[in-house]
Amino acid sequence: MQTNELSGSDAMLEQRNFGIEPWAIRETGFDPGNLGHAESVFALANGHIGLRGNLDEGEPYGLPGTYLNSFFEYRPLPYAEGGYGYPESGQAVLNVTNGKVLRLMVDDEPLDIRYGDLRHHERVLDFRAGTLTREFEWVSPAGKAVRVRSERLVSLAQRAVAAIRYTVSAVDQPILVVVQSELVANEELPTGGNDPRVEAALVQPLQPEAHYVDDSGVTLLHRVEQSGLRMAATMAHDIDAPDGFQVHTSAHEDLGRTTITCRLLPGQHLRIVKHLAYGWSSQRSLPALNDQVRAARTVARYHGFEGLLDEQRRYLTDYWASADVEIEGDPQLQQAVRFALFHVLQAGARAERRAIAAKGLTGPGYDGHTFWDTETFVLPMLSHTAPDAAADALRWRQSILPQARERAEQLGLSGAAFPWRTIRGAECSGYWPAGTAAFHLNADIADAVIRHVQTTGDADFEREVGVELLVETARLWMSVGQHAPGGGFRIDGVTGPDEYSAVADNNIYTNLMAQRNLNGAAAACERHPGKASELAVAAEETAAWRKAAENMVIPFDDQLGVHAQSEGFTSHGRWDFAGTSPGQYPLMLHFPYFDIYRKQVVKQADLVLAMQLCPEAFTPEQKARNFAYYEQITVRDSSLSAATQAVIAAETGHLDLAYDYVSETALLDLGDLAGNTAHGLHIAALAGAWNGVVAGFGGLRHLSTGLALAPRLPGALTRIVFRLRWRGRCLVVEITPDQAVYHLVYGEDLELRHHGELITVPRDGSTARPIPAPEPVEPVRQPRGREPLARRIREGAA
Amino acid sequence: MQTNELSGSDAMLEQRNFGIEPWAIRETGFDPGNLGHAESVFALANGHIGLRGNLDEGEPYGLPGTYLNSFFEYRPLPYAEGGYGYPESGQAVLNVTNGKVLRLMVDDEPLDIRYGDLRHHERVLDFRAGTLTREFEWVSPAGKAVRVRSERLVSLAQRAVAAIRYTVSAVDQPILVVVQSELVANEELPTGGNDPRVEAALVQPLQPEAHYVDDSGVTLLHRVEQSGLRMAATMAHDIDAPDGFQVHTSAHEDLGRTTITCRLLPGQHLRIVKHLAYGWSSQRSLPALNDQVRAARTVARYHGFEGLLDEQRRYLTDYWASADVEIEGDPQLQQAVRFALFHVLQAGARAERRAIAAKGLTGPGYDGHTFWDTETFVLPMLSHTAPDAAADALRWRQSILPQARERAEQLGLSGAAFPWRTIRGAECSGYWPAGTAAFHLNADIADAVIRHVQTTGDADFEREVGVELLVETARLWMSVGQHAPGGGFRIDGVTGPDEYSAVADNNIYTNLMAQRNLNGAAAACERHPGKASELAVAAEETAAWRKAAENMVIPFDDQLGVHAQSEGFTSHGRWDFAGTSPGQYPLMLHFPYFDIYRKQVVKQADLVLAMQLCPEAFTPEQKARNFAYYEQITVRDSSLSAATQAVIAAETGHLDLAYDYVSETALLDLGDLAGNTAHGLHIAALAGAWNGVVAGFGGLRHLSTGLALAPRLPGALTRIVFRLRWRGRCLVVEITPDQAVYHLVYGEDLELRHHGELITVPRDGSTARPIPAPEPVEPVRQPRGREPLARRIREGAA
Repeated sequence: MQTNELSGSDAMLEQRNFGIEPWAIRETGFDPGNLGHAESVFALANGHIGLRGNLDEGEPYGLPGTYLNSFFEYRPLPYAEGGYGYPESGQAVLNVTNGKVLRLMVDDEPLDIRYGDLRHHERVLDFRAGTLTREFEWVSPAGKAVRVRSERLVSLAQRAVAAIRYTVSAVDQPILVVVQSELVANEELPTGGNDPRVEAALVQPLQPEAHYVDDSGVTLLHRVEQSGLRMAATMAHDIDAPDGFQVHTSAHEDLGRTTITCRLLPGQHLRIVKHLAYGWSSQRSLPALNDQVRAARTVARYHGFEGLLDEQRRYLTDYWASADVEIEGDPQLQQAVRFALFHVLQAGARAERRAIAAKGLTGPGYDGHTFWDTETFVLPMLSHTAPDAAADALRWRQSILPQARERAEQLGLSGAAFPWRTIRGAECSGYWPAGTAAFHLNADIADAVIRHVQTTGDADFEREVGVELLVETARLWMSVGQHAPGGGFRIDGVTGPDEYSAVADNNIYTNLMAQRNLNGAAAACERHPGKASELAVAAEETAAWRKAAENMVIPFDDQLGVHAQSEGFTSHGRWDFAGTSPGQYPLMLHFPYFDIYRKQVVKQADLVLAMQLCPEAFTPEQKARNFAYYEQITVRDSSLSAATQAVIAAETGHLDLAYDYVSETALLDLGDLAGNTAHGLHIAALAGAWNGVVAGFGGLRHLSTGLALAPRLPGALTRIVFRLRWRGRCLVVEITPDQAVYHLVYGEDLELRHHGELITVPRDGSTARPIPAPEPVEPVRQPRGREPLARRIREGAA
Repeated sequence: MQTNELSGSDAMLEQRNFGIEPWAIRETGFDPGNLGHAESVFALANGHIGLRGNLDEGEPYGLPGTYLNSFFEYRPLPYAEGGYGYPESGQAVLNVTNGKVLRLMVDDEPLDIRYGDLRHHERVLDFRAGTLTREFEWVSPAGKAVRVRSERLVSLAQRAVAAIRYTVSAVDQPILVVVQSELVANEELPTGGNDPRVEAALVQPLQPEAHYVDDSGVTLLHRVEQSGLRMAATMAHDIDAPDGFQVHTSAHEDLGRTTITCRLLPGQHLRIVKHLAYGWSSQRSLPALNDQVRAARTVARYHGFEGLLDEQRRYLTDYWASADVEIEGDPQLQQAVRFALFHVLQAGARAERRAIAAKGLTGPGYDGHTFWDTETFVLPMLSHTAPDAAADALRWRQSILPQARERAEQLGLSGAAFPWRTIRGAECSGYWPAGTAAFHLNADIADAVIRHVQTTGDADFEREVGVELLVETARLWMSVGQHAPGGGFRIDGVTGPDEYSAVADNNIYTNLMAQRNLNGAAAACERHPGKASELAVAAEETAAWRKAAENMVIPFDDQLGVHAQSEGFTSHGRWDFAGTSPGQYPLMLHFPYFDIYRKQVVKQADLVLAMQLCPEAFTPEQKARNFAYYEQITVRDSSLSAATQAVIAAETGHLDLAYDYVSETALLDLGDLAGNTAHGLHIAALAGAWNGVVAGFGGLRHLSTGLALAPRLPGALTRIVFRLRWRGRCLVVEITPDQAVYHLVYGEDLELRHHGELITVPRDGSTARPIPAPEPVEPVRQPRGREPLARRIREGAA
């Protein structure tokens, strides 16, 4: 992804105001310089609705944000020099009607924490409760004190629903309070500094269609001009207040407001439960959508806030039971990994055949687009921890097959060519060398399918969803690649994951993943002959796939004894790392593509990722040599690299390095290491924390022989326990320095490999195995100044 | 160049309404569908001012056009996804104040040839007179007949001056005529269909600064907002009319008008000489510029129209004496080659340290930019025929060295990186793979320097201009390339002339031209040690250049026995020519770059051009094999290909094919073969006609051993005579089927090689030599449907 880089130079592994505790993020105090960052960290979402952690009173803010999955507007994609097949318009996620706002007037002063006296301010994101709680005590400039507690949730059980319980108490003097609870459409946003002509499409994007007041609340309906999408937001309030309070509700085109006025004596409180419901559709009529959101609101009120809290906790208890990762020896990492698991769930839980975007629903970064990293980093984790969410994300890919087939046809190719970046299926990439040319995305989707089916054993899913995705991507590869006259199936002129090379021949990651795709498609067709026949796959076609896979060109440099990331790569000049100053990273912001592309410098794991995802294509010796070679030229200017480097560092015996990389990816957003968390969390990097622990320290691999683990702890950790689902089972893996204990919470006996040894974990029982002592290894080196952040900080401090 | 393609599919080798004669283009009749094309063909220019062949009365038009060399405005270059080093704004040539307009009212009817009765209409572009003459007889709808003759010139002798002599005669009835002679600024132009946001900068680009009327005319001064350039246009009239005529002159911000009213009896005429003068400056004050153009106008009036005609003819007589090419056996080709020679002169004659643009000053195509083809195709011809113009064009390159050095620095390179496309020195390319990455441009400039110095022997020019250009480009190569650890100097990730491949390693054209550049720089520094020392060139540096040149990687495919256009090129899949329909050319408009780049398909001569410009890097056998191999994958979607294919076809014995290619390039604009001549002539392709004849049939090469020729006629021609300048001499080469006669018009004895044999042409004498019989050759093939147009038409007709 073009602009995903790790600035890192000044970043610290500190967590700003966030305290370290195992199951929550707690912010104490108020840091006006950290607003945007905190809003992303404190975002609540369920995959359908996303609310940034904006303050209840609306201001101050870093970036207001309320998102509905896949609710977007088109925006122009301009080109200085156009070309065939360039997309003319992109899609950008919209900030929709904001229902978070509860403004408070204390006597005649509006509550604004920038003024008056803030005695105490605390926010807590609770991973088990699924709530954002805020408590503070504020004294108005006129000396009137109030205590406010707000509890916010976006329901994981009711996908259309969010709710806020807002409690105001008088402290030591009687006060008159006025609460204005609002729905605000077309909020003014800070300008992004982008091309004003491009931004114009997104100013006031919501066209009012209708607004209604009923006895219990307000509903606003809007439509978006170019995309034609319609949305509805509704609110209603349950109020608990001393006698004599007054309520008034009004609605305008872009504003709904319920005003509650009441007098509070010291110790008395006003408590408002604000029920919110959202809906959108490209097809449903205005009355239908209006009814839909009101029904959702009614259900929410029926449950009540306590009922919603109970459902939320139950949902999360289930999740953690098969997803939790326990880490002993590093409380910060423990917290960060659970934070990661929590947010990845929030991004995907209820997406339900919509995309899981790179930023989830936590911010407008990347325009709300979804890329390859969802399949490569997020779905493997979800398949093992929340398989329904993974299946739904792949059903979304299936749903955009018509656009992907059309795109393939436009490009002169067969099968389906999925978009490099999109919200609803159309290609939105405006730079083809790092967009259209990155065909590996299609193999990444196939890989996610294969991995999901391996993990879940879900034959229905494979038949209904998997086969079609595998077949159409396999067909693509047959047209992208070609059998060269001299032998070998070549895939020329494509871009792999490493965006510091582009349009290269036989990128090893692409070729290996295409191989996996072709073989996987053939195997799936053989398992589902009826479906294959529906898709007109004949035996000749699967045979051709297998032949192409078998003959796939895998570039290897005999002189260096390492694989080449792509043909000719190892002949290129090496980047002048010694002459590059820390301030010149990320390189793409300080050097032209042409210079970056033609040199040996790697933005993010590419060949190293291939070693993780296609482990059987490399010998252990090759893995060690390759890792050492590529480590010294990988600058990690992308947030999608550390997790993979962690996994292969662990496999090749560099456990402390793996630990540093896991720390880096896990702390990416909590520590704002890339400096851009304010625009949204890096969901794939967060999923990478899970990958780093489970595939790194756990050594999890899907081999042709079945499930394999190779647990081993880094020096800093004393114990790791992780859970994962595997074909109707929940497996718990407990790693201590000398042994691994495998335990089945439920499910049938399980055969797996432990450091290569085939073992059986019995039903309802456990098996312990010693961990073989690691072989001593030569240390590997990174480019000057591009060591893992944790290491840089330690060494800087030393 | 991005959009330079040869549509060709429906194009014909016919010349629309143009008759065939040796020294002129004569159009009879009036074809409203051919207006734009004819305006380019009939354009007059002197390298400083350019006037499209618009009708005197202003309408109808294809595209109004008046240009001043390098007078431009900035326009935004937008990007869907930006990148480091992308230029933010481009430069676009402006249509300036139009002084061509002479509207005529006959009694109460405006003369408009779309109405009334056009009895006769003829235009003649005379290559020896340097004039555009128009004669017609028109009968107004009311039945009043007039005869009009206009003669237009853009003075080659007075660079700021143009003039029109306009004569109206009454035919058979008395008439009242009113002539409105105008200066019109900010003409409304047909919209280009481009992005309206980008076009906006060019609507009404001239901001009025001042307008003056004096007894003899009008002067308008304007300024351009962003570029800050100021221009002045002035007109004055000398009138010859029957007694009683009236003249009135007025001026407004964007309009100057002199109105002449007179009564004409049958046989009487009104004759107006309109003197025009133009000037522009980035620095001169308004009064200074105002005075400057009035002075030029005064000089023109002093000479009078006949005086201007005399000067013009003298200038051209000189030119043809050492530039003319005579062709016997194909009158159409004879005419086309002289047309080409005339327009190339017009593009460069008086450019005087400004650029010679791809379209000259004949239209707004390519925004008026200059590319590599000026150095590669135009300057070699000018060095041999109008050497001062060639020297001045290279002085312009020297003048933009500051920007080129700055660009190199921005790109992290040494020396100077010249812009891929520009008007005044800044990079204006918005697509770096076919812009910035095409570094060969720098070697092309160096090559033009070397070639110019070889041709003229001008040591002063070499010292003052050449050395600096050679040194700065050589320095660039040292930073673009690198000595690989395994040996060999590599130039990775660049784009050669063939724009259907991009960002490739060791493009053979680039590497060979860089080699020539490095050696040429070292040699020039040795010849001019003082200048070298001024430029801080030490012996170590020239040694390093020579070493890099010596070790230059030249990719060769041992299996196929041909050179590879770039590393790996011959491993790529071949384009599916059989599956490509005629309507799918040019490929770039119907297929994505990614697909074109990764396959063996060549837009335009690349390796084949290297064989022409670096002839000693290939054996005759290699040339033959390479030509045959690349011929079958070259689609000639660029106008810059046929000339080169002609040259190497001739060298490798395919003389009839060479003839077809020479015909194609010579007739490109007369036949509108690319379908876009309306936007301006293809100056490099026209110069290519000269190259095709002189380097193709004449076999002209600059070898390390000196001047070499290898004349040989194609079957269709019976005699070719061409002239060229060589180091103070004018050499005439006469080729007949069996012998070549070399004759020196002036200059000292000349040693040259005739088909490899060293011969001496004596001062004031001639030497005849037999032409050896050609070896029989196997025919070569082009991709289906991409044979030369002449051949396609012949075979279609057969």
